Amino acid sequence: MIQERIAALRKRMKEEKIDAYLVLTDDFHGSEYVGGYFKCREYITGFTGSAGTALITEESAGLWTDGRYFIQAAQQLKGSGITLYKMGEPDVPTVHEYLEQTLGIGQCLGYDGRTVSTGEASELSEILKKKGAVQNGSLDLIGDIWEDRPRLSCEPVSELDVKWSGESRASKIARVRKSMLEKKADLFLLSTLDDIAWLLNIRGGDIACCPVVLSYLVMTDEEALLFANERAFPETVKLALEAEHVRFQPYDAVYDFLAGLPSGKKLLLCRDKVNSRLTASVPEGVEVIDGENPTLLFKAVKNPTEVKNERAAHIKDGVALTKFIYWLKTNVGKIPITELGAEKRLFSLRSEQEHFMGNSFEPILSYGEHAAIVHYSATPETDVPIEPHGFLLADTGGHYLEGTTDVTRTIAMGPLTDEEKFYFTAVLRGHLNLAAAKFRSGTTGLSLDYLARAPLWQLGRDFNHGTGHGVGYLLNVHEGPNSFHWRSTPNRKADTAFEEGMITSDEPGYYEEGKFGIRHENLIVCVKDQETAYGSFLRFEPLTMVPFDLDAIVPEQMTERERTLLNRYHAQVFENISPYLNEEEKAWLKEATRMIEI
Amino acid sequence: MIQERIAALRKRMKEEKIDAYLVLTDDFHGSEYVGGYFKCREYITGFTGSAGTALITEESAGLWTDGRYFIQAAQQLKGSGITLYKMGEPDVPTVHEYLEQTLGIGQCLGYDGRTVSTGEASELSEILKKKGAVQNGSLDLIGDIWEDRPRLSCEPVSELDVKWSGESRASKIARVRKSMLEKKADLFLLSTLDDIAWLLNIRGGDIACCPVVLSYLVMTDEEALLFANERAFPETVKLALEAEHVRFQPYDAVYDFLAGLPSGKKLLLCRDKVNSRLTASVPEGVEVIDGENPTLLFKAVKNPTEVKNERAAHIKDGVALTKFIYWLKTNVGKIPITELGAEKRLFSLRSEQEHFMGNSFEPILSYGEHAAIVHYSATPETDVPIEPHGFLLADTGGHYLEGTTDVTRTIAMGPLTDEEKFYFTAVLRGHLNLAAAKFRSGTTGLSLDYLARAPLWQLGRDFNHGTGHGVGYLLNVHEGPNSFHWRSTPNRKADTAFEEGMITSDEPGYYEEGKFGIRHENLIVCVKDQETAYGSFLRFEPLTMVPFDLDAIVPEQMTERERTLLNRYHAQVFENISPYLNEEEKAWLKEATRMIEI
Repeated sequence: MIQERIAALRKRMKEEKIDAYLVLTDDFHGSEYVGGYFKCREYITGFTGSAGTALITEESAGLWTDGRYFIQAAQQLKGSGITLYKMGEPDVPTVHEYLEQTLGIGQCLGYDGRTVSTGEASELSEILKKKGAVQNGSLDLIGDIWEDRPRLSCEPVSELDVKWSGESRASKIARVRKSMLEKKADLFLLSTLDDIAWLLNIRGGDIACCPVVLSYLVMTDEEALLFANERAFPETVKLALEAEHVRFQPYDAVYDFLAGLPSGKKLLLCRDKVNSRLTASVPEGVEVIDGENPTLLFKAVKNPTEVKNERAAHIKDGVALTKFIYWLKTNVGKIPITELGAEKRLFSLRSEQEHFMGNSFEPILSYGEHAAIVHYSATPETDVPIEPHGFLLADTGGHYLEGTTDVTRTIAMGPLTDEEKFYFTAVLRGHLNLAAAKFRSGTTGLSLDYLARAPLWQLGRDFNHGTGHGVGYLLNVHEGPNSFHWRSTPNRKADTAFEEGMITSDEPGYYEEGKFGIRHENLIVCVKDQETAYGSFLRFEPLTMVPFDLDAIVPEQMTERERTLLNRYHAQVFENISPYLNEEEKAWLKEATRMIEI
Repeated sequence: MIQERIAALRKRMKEEKIDAYLVLTDDFHGSEYVGGYFKCREYITGFTGSAGTALITEESAGLWTDGRYFIQAAQQLKGSGITLYKMGEPDVPTVHEYLEQTLGIGQCLGYDGRTVSTGEASELSEILKKKGAVQNGSLDLIGDIWEDRPRLSCEPVSELDVKWSGESRASKIARVRKSMLEKKADLFLLSTLDDIAWLLNIRGGDIACCPVVLSYLVMTDEEALLFANERAFPETVKLALEAEHVRFQPYDAVYDFLAGLPSGKKLLLCRDKVNSRLTASVPEGVEVIDGENPTLLFKAVKNPTEVKNERAAHIKDGVALTKFIYWLKTNVGKIPITELGAEKRLFSLRSEQEHFMGNSFEPILSYGEHAAIVHYSATPETDVPIEPHGFLLADTGGHYLEGTTDVTRTIAMGPLTDEEKFYFTAVLRGHLNLAAAKFRSGTTGLSLDYLARAPLWQLGRDFNHGTGHGVGYLLNVHEGPNSFHWRSTPNRKADTAFEEGMITSDEPGYYEEGKFGIRHENLIVCVKDQETAYGSFLRFEPLTMVPFDLDAIVPEQMTERERTLLNRYHAQVFENISPYLNEEEKAWLKEATRMIEI
């Protein structure tokens, strides 16, 4: 089937005089997850992983993906005739290097510029220029051959009441206009879906687990043009938007609108975020002001209403999780439970909570050695029974009207090895120390990350992922710009200072391949600590309210301060969660949050 | 006298049609400290501080300086007619803002471009362009009027034998040429004095406490042109340099040399480090490759010989310091000792050590409330007796053929207040925790700084300086690029990853204005810890070998780990220093380095 699709693509390539066609994973908005309509790379290769790039020429077809997906990609590409390029392995060319080797004078690279970031398009241009080749970014050849392509999502849009959002869209729009004025911009082009949903206080369902609305937005000093499928909007929402001078335009019309901008206008956009066909549509006479979307920081700094709501959401979520852990611990080994069965149970417990809207990401419930695969998510093929020993790692989250949760607990299903307890405790020490940081205003995640890694680094160990990410309010569970990382990279600057109201995950881990995986994750909110002659000081408060498993802890391995931090946290958990439990569960939680000492 | 000098300057300004003349503090090499010849700003204002900028117009004369110098500058400017502009105070214009307000169309700003960095000159150009004004950077009007100006220093140059430097100049030159090749540069212009001294294995005495040689260097792929006063070089040094194709040129000739470069040549230089007259001299047809001096990182990473030597230097220095502290503690209150007297005693104890070459910076011996003034250095006017109570802070260092030391100890002269002991212990905890860090290769000072500040930040306190700086080998005591800072600024990026062999100071402090000052400073060298499946790990080892004052410590305030770290360090101090002490001193040191416990 894949071979037939590739043959059909090659036919279209010939018609369009395209020598190499590039298929990326992005949607038109640079979203982390994408809807079915956008899964062109999956369609043409059969590979279903979340990251990868396909390149088809007349004679060759290749797929590039990273270490997380080498095994899966090899299986899924079998028989397709597509070569797997294992990114980062020695002597494996990158897509760019491959293009440079392959294309010659006068040849043409084709792609859909809407799925390519402006930065990536610039890099491609450089390579082609060097080789005397050209490009055509206004094609959608996969769309041309994809007969049963899913439609563009058009899930119903709802309004997020100000009692949930804490700020009217009028106020948000006014703040954005103030930024435009400061940057001397006449227009502002916004294409990131979570920013648009935040700005307009709307929520949708166009991406699984991400309640966003497929749209582009162009703001002027008087109105806001919303390029979206109007049919998704109920009349009440439309009226409310129109009251703030939001005017509807067809989703696709943004490209022609930009192309028609009169000379002399100044257009603010963020080149790193906007797709290359958008930037290519802007006429030469329009001055582009490249700058971060002002909405990025506005959205990251949660207002007092949002923070209050998030606390409530996390108590609901904590009740569901606590009931889940109690159920697991009392039933494991007695009734059959698998990873997928546990996932279902947890979803049903969350669903019992008022205002629950769905999972905030694909749940990770991984038992035993599965937990060492950081991106593991159980499928019917991989699902295993949970046995009464070792660890179950549960990294899950929910959306509520009151906000979004993301929590990981590593739960002892029975007896543990000394090694499992040792590293469980080491990772927890890092988690607690980071959460307890007090710091000067101006401090970034780069300065605090060491606290979470120190216990592992002292042992010559580490975990191969960031320590924390920002979290949206009933939006994307991964949201910038706040984060915890130990080093900056060009793609991930980690140079944003924490501000009161930012919500970040604190999630160190430790993984032993083929054996076990451990991760402890709370969401923590940045709050004001004190103002002194030496400066403004900030600290974090935990939002997540779920016990850490004392069955897996070696108290002797912890400092007195660390034990105190854990005891204090557990007292908070009991206080917040116990009122919503039945007597049995309450008795269990009392024991599960007992003070530890040595 | 100052008024007469300003009148003479204004006369020259009129002759040259200059409407405003700018006088900076820099020498021609951007050095932190400058020789007498370069003290133009001091000459024209009478202000002797280490930082400040003067601007003279026909009608006005102003001096800009920062908070460290407000009091001193006000005193020294009295009667001069010069207005003091307190930088950073509300409603005080910056020099740039003042220029923008003052200069009009067709007016001319004059300055000596050799004392202005290329970056600063660009900023000035921007301002002048906005106002329709022009500039002339090829003047030295202070030189024209300064009748008894000190001569350019021409202190004798000596060769630093490879047994001290650990690497021949041939090898260093080859490494620089390799960098030039990688950057496709035909020539490399180097004007920072410590880099030139490092590269050529020469030492001089042209700046107090900095054993450098006034010079510029231009390297080609075949030879190195050394623009310097040839008379400072003994015949043997000259022959040795000429053997490596180093050719002498007059110091001043570098500007004409650059002006005469043929078109098409590619010249590597670091715009941030090279003065604006140098860059202005480069003809248009020459392609300038702007990049960090390759010598910067080479010099910062000490080779095994340098590290071995530095350990020896620090034992010598530790012996002198230990004897000094013993002398102070046994004599305070019995014989009169002042800050300057103590300084003299310490210098004499250092002088007893073989290969001692002099102070590595102006010593800071500050008693009681003086120590709260971070940049205090005693003068006959400020000198006070040291009394048998409170703290003496001693921040001093020496140059030896085996390397450079920089050490701060805060010494109890008798009874202390609880507050003094409390903060002494808090600062020491930070010092010990930073020194004990173990970290992945790739970690920067930004990620580790928190360790030093945490005990104070937890209390809502802080210290208003960096936590650590790189240190040269018998060169500048402040040397980049390694450092510990809690935030990056454009001028101080703190983004250099630590490498094996880098030497950095670890010097947190705490200051209570009008009361006391505390600082604990060791030099620490970065060493390899271990290589694991999780990465390469590094750590630090202390070079400085001097006891911390146990009389000022509250052991109960420290964690068990911190007490262990202190005890281990003190055991090392006793082992390394005691062999060089007499019996009395040894007995004292035994007690001063005793194990503490609670």
